[in-house]
Amino acid sequence: MRTTRNSAIALVAAVAFTTIARAQDPLPSWNDGLAKQSVITFVEKVTKSGSPDFVPVPERIATFDNDGTLWCEKPLPVQVYFALDRVKELAPQHPDWQTKEPFASILKGDLKGAMAAGERGLVEVLMATHAGNTTEEFEKIVKDWIATAKHPKTGKLYTEMVYQPMLEVLAYLRANGFKTFIVSGGGIEFMRPWMEKVYGIPPEQVVGSSVKTKFELRDGQPVLVRLPEVNFNDDKGGKPVGINQHIGRRPIAAFGNSDGDLQMLQYTGAGSGTRFCLYVHHDDAAREYAYDREDGLAKLDKGLDEAAVKGWTVVSMKNDWQTVFPAERK
Amino acid sequence: MRTTRNSAIALVAAVAFTTIARAQDPLPSWNDGLAKQSVITFVEKVTKSGSPDFVPVPERIATFDNDGTLWCEKPLPVQVYFALDRVKELAPQHPDWQTKEPFASILKGDLKGAMAAGERGLVEVLMATHAGNTTEEFEKIVKDWIATAKHPKTGKLYTEMVYQPMLEVLAYLRANGFKTFIVSGGGIEFMRPWMEKVYGIPPEQVVGSSVKTKFELRDGQPVLVRLPEVNFNDDKGGKPVGINQHIGRRPIAAFGNSDGDLQMLQYTGAGSGTRFCLYVHHDDAAREYAYDREDGLAKLDKGLDEAAVKGWTVVSMKNDWQTVFPAERK
Repeated sequence: MRTTRNSAIALVAAVAFTTIARAQDPLPSWNDGLAKQSVITFVEKVTKSGSPDFVPVPERIATFDNDGTLWCEKPLPVQVYFALDRVKELAPQHPDWQTKEPFASILKGDLKGAMAAGERGLVEVLMATHAGNTTEEFEKIVKDWIATAKHPKTGKLYTEMVYQPMLEVLAYLRANGFKTFIVSGGGIEFMRPWMEKVYGIPPEQVVGSSVKTKFELRDGQPVLVRLPEVNFNDDKGGKPVGINQHIGRRPIAAFGNSDGDLQMLQYTGAGSGTRFCLYVHHDDAAREYAYDREDGLAKLDKGLDEAAVKGWTVVSMKNDWQTVFPAERK
Repeated sequence: MRTTRNSAIALVAAVAFTTIARAQDPLPSWNDGLAKQSVITFVEKVTKSGSPDFVPVPERIATFDNDGTLWCEKPLPVQVYFALDRVKELAPQHPDWQTKEPFASILKGDLKGAMAAGERGLVEVLMATHAGNTTEEFEKIVKDWIATAKHPKTGKLYTEMVYQPMLEVLAYLRANGFKTFIVSGGGIEFMRPWMEKVYGIPPEQVVGSSVKTKFELRDGQPVLVRLPEVNFNDDKGGKPVGINQHIGRRPIAAFGNSDGDLQMLQYTGAGSGTRFCLYVHHDDAAREYAYDREDGLAKLDKGLDEAAVKGWTVVSMKNDWQTVFPAERK
């Protein structure tokens, strides 16, 4: 009997240890404060069985913007640097680019001049640099680029400029039965090749903008060819559309950092039951960048007002985050 | 000591029991034969760690067509009956339908007459019956309909006319770490409301045809409005396109029943490593329906030839399946 009791005690101890381990701080890179507490309170509410706020595991869907929410988007979104590098790489095959805008300016390193071509010029650059190959070829191009391309200011790999506190939120949610999705204006095929390794998010949980693709048999081998035609723009009102199309279920939590995420947060917040909406506010010029209402490309203006009215969590990178980027590799 | 040893024995016994339970026939509704064996051999190969055929869990993606692969698609695909019922329901709001084809013929119960309007007429009916509402309204319409609509020949609910042997394949794959996806020409929002309950497949793992949707704030409430415009046709070459868009990873197993699934099987089979492609062949007029090369709507013609050349599994419903539909409810 005694040893059976001992086994029972060992079992209880093991369970207790697990409980303690779980009760450890799930967000160690966050400073104690309202923002951190709001994340934890939400997760505890929806996972407490028997509580009126309880949400069954299959409905625990959380969506995250990428640029500016999970990794640095300044001075320019990372995908823009990818496009610029691609223009330089492809230039020898396009002699006309030497005199054709916005390519000519890009090749001279004159970004301001390139910007003069406006949105139409940007789309032209994106199509020229993101289409015309197969999905497998494009995947390899992205993987090769992201493995070595470095941030112009810090000299770090872009994948090292992800936000440590947000990696902790992703892990914390998953440990509590959430499925985490990316919902980004970025190109879906630009993100998938590295997100599984960097964020733990598999390709099927990445929603983004896309070009059209076409199925073909090439010498009997099936391929998908990337066409120079926009298929979907996963930004602003496109985010709830993309969520509905890919996920088919309204998230119960959404994380963004700009007005491009506002509709996603509105859509998430308007569902029945307990919901959680969070904005990352870039107010840390010392450790990252400071921008909000005045920033053309990544403006957080309407979002700040609506967050105040609706009680959404607004994270101050400066005050709420103990560290911003993951510790340097030794 | 003795009781500790007893505990150890109990533990070993528990583990052994689990192993035996797992080793039990995972496909009890299948007759022993090459088809059944091919499924089991494939799963054992890719899940055996250390084997050259081993596939890590995140890459274990299996895609299933729906109509004719997981449930009965005769005399007509279920969604057609849904559209016909919707025409009758909506007719009072559309007095012009009394004289306008193909609506007039549908309202008279003259399906042949309706067919005369061809594909254009079909699209018109689909748009009139599937769009114009919000995604939430449409979901409710589908849920209400599928809960009571009955097959014209058997009088069973459509959701009772799913194939028991295929339900076993779905469960068997999932028990072995696979993620199972639907990839169907059917409407994505027609399938999602009931597939989680019937197949155990959550909305985010359903790929299908779709209409465009638009984000709107109605009295401050965010809604997605279904527009009468085709967004995506998830059939034939559209299936690999849809797979790439939603899943972003090439499946290692694909299941279909018609030439509309051929490109999905080609795409799946052409990947590197061990792959599995299976066609359900409808050759059982007594228990279900018999159709293949001659059937306009759901023809299996090129697929049969290619399956023979490539060694894909072709399931004879008549010979390989011990039962077709789940046992009647008592």
